[in-house]
Amino acid sequence: MKNSVFEKDLYRWYGEKGESLKRRLFRPREISYMYFLRKVQSASNPVFKAYYKLRLHRLSLKTNIQISAAAKIGEGFYIGHTGRIIINPKAVLGRNINIATGVVIGRENRGEREGAPTIGDNCWIGANSVIVGKVNIGNDVFIAPLTFVNFDVPDHSIVIGNPAKISPKENATLGYINRTV
Amino acid sequence: MKNSVFEKDLYRWYGEKGESLKRRLFRPREISYMYFLRKVQSASNPVFKAYYKLRLHRLSLKTNIQISAAAKIGEGFYIGHTGRIIINPKAVLGRNINIATGVVIGRENRGEREGAPTIGDNCWIGANSVIVGKVNIGNDVFIAPLTFVNFDVPDHSIVIGNPAKISPKENATLGYINRTV
Amino acid sequence: MKNSVFEKDLYRWYGEKGESLKRRLFRPREISYMYFLRKVQSASNPVFKAYYKLRLHRLSLKTNIQISAAAKIGEGFYIGHTGRIIINPKAVLGRNINIATGVVIGRENRGEREGAPTIGDNCWIGANSVIVGKVNIGNDVFIAPLTFVNFDVPDHSIVIGNPAKISPKENATLGYINRTV
Repeated sequence: MKNSVFEKDLYRWYGEKGESLKRRLFRPREISYMYFLRKVQSASNPVFKAYYKLRLHRLSLKTNIQISAAAKIGEGFYIGHTGRIIINPKAVLGRNINIATGVVIGRENRGEREGAPTIGDNCWIGANSVIVGKVNIGNDVFIAPLTFVNFDVPDHSIVIGNPAKISPKENATLGYINRTV
Repeated sequence: MKNSVFEKDLYRWYGEKGESLKRRLFRPREISYMYFLRKVQSASNPVFKAYYKLRLHRLSLKTNIQISAAAKIGEGFYIGHTGRIIINPKAVLGRNINIATGVVIGRENRGEREGAPTIGDNCWIGANSVIVGKVNIGNDVFIAPLTFVNFDVPDHSIVIGNPAKISPKENATLGYINRTV
Repeated sequence: MKNSVFEKDLYRWYGEKGESLKRRLFRPREISYMYFLRKVQSASNPVFKAYYKLRLHRLSLKTNIQISAAAKIGEGFYIGHTGRIIINPKAVLGRNINIATGVVIGRENRGEREGAPTIGDNCWIGANSVIVGKVNIGNDVFIAPLTFVNFDVPDHSIVIGNPAKISPKENATLGYINRTV
């Protein structure tokens, strides 16, 4: 699986190419989850795909991570801590996204924002935050914990509060998004 | 179990009467949880009741859903996504309630709102929201994700933010509460 | 384990010294978690310590409680409901702290508040709240559910909202912090 998407996800955790045997044997569950998610997304053989789906489903029951394999998720995806995370099948996420536990990226069911979010590159989403609706989140956006986002956010922003405020800031995710791919 | 409360809960998920064999064999855990919760609530034979309690307890450990069987929960209860949900034994919920993961419906321990919430019919409660104290939530109330509610809410309202704002709206839960019973 | 730290934690749950055989056999997982956490913290024999760490790790996978054994946690620590709780290794907590499910006590990665919180005695932290950064929380502080705290809080305060407001109040945690040790 050289240069695979999963290898790039791994780089976000360890800052080096590949995974030592020890790390592989004692993989934390959030990394295993990404492994099987990427396998489901890339498998072409339907038998293998079904097997990976089963493994992913079991891991989902154990961890409560419920990231749809149908969601488009860029390389370098990082899950901070194990625990419930929900990502809607229609969501689109860019590269180098960090998501903490407790986050929901979901859909709105009516109105002009009916649909699911599109999120740019290098975004950090803090614990327990919720992003819903057909909104566009730019690049280099820092979403603080416990923030409710149902609106567009421009590049280079810090979003905080509920109702939230957007503050422009260069390098908004500096120190939070590391080892980018 | 014809016309049972559980059958009405099921209708909220599938929009049809009864449950096919396939669905029954591959029941998602949140539906199994409701099955055993309704069994505990309706069982008259103490041996069966103890068995259902045990099964419910085990499911609770697996899912972190902690809905007290002592809570009064109307027909057509819908759990959106598996994951931690807590409902206090003293809470009273009406018909056609949707609860997302991360929600807590709890008690206050002192003061004039000491006690647990009473919630009307056709209410939607978004992810990570918390409702506490002896408050009355009306019918057709939409509580957005991440909302902290420790006050009464009239019928036909949207509640959002922390501190929260109440906005009157006809059909507040349109598109969110479907297949009512 | 007479007069041990764990025995004082237990007192917060049961209001009496020691643990009956029945309670010991049917220990809720959050109490088992505290048992092994205190064992890891106090074990001097490295073989026992490794064993306790393994047990704690397994419980952590089952419960999603992720309280670092490196965090300094005073006597009389109480976990309300099982479910995901995260406490950073650098956090310092005083005596008689209550933490509800969904809480994160974490670090900030940059700026003048880089580091993790220090929390005083007799504090109650409500469901889904997040406390981050090198901040000082005083004694007798009530942090409502869903509150985001990244600032200092003086003694005898109620903190609520996001952005949060601090209100001074004598006996802020009355009725919430009971059976202190």
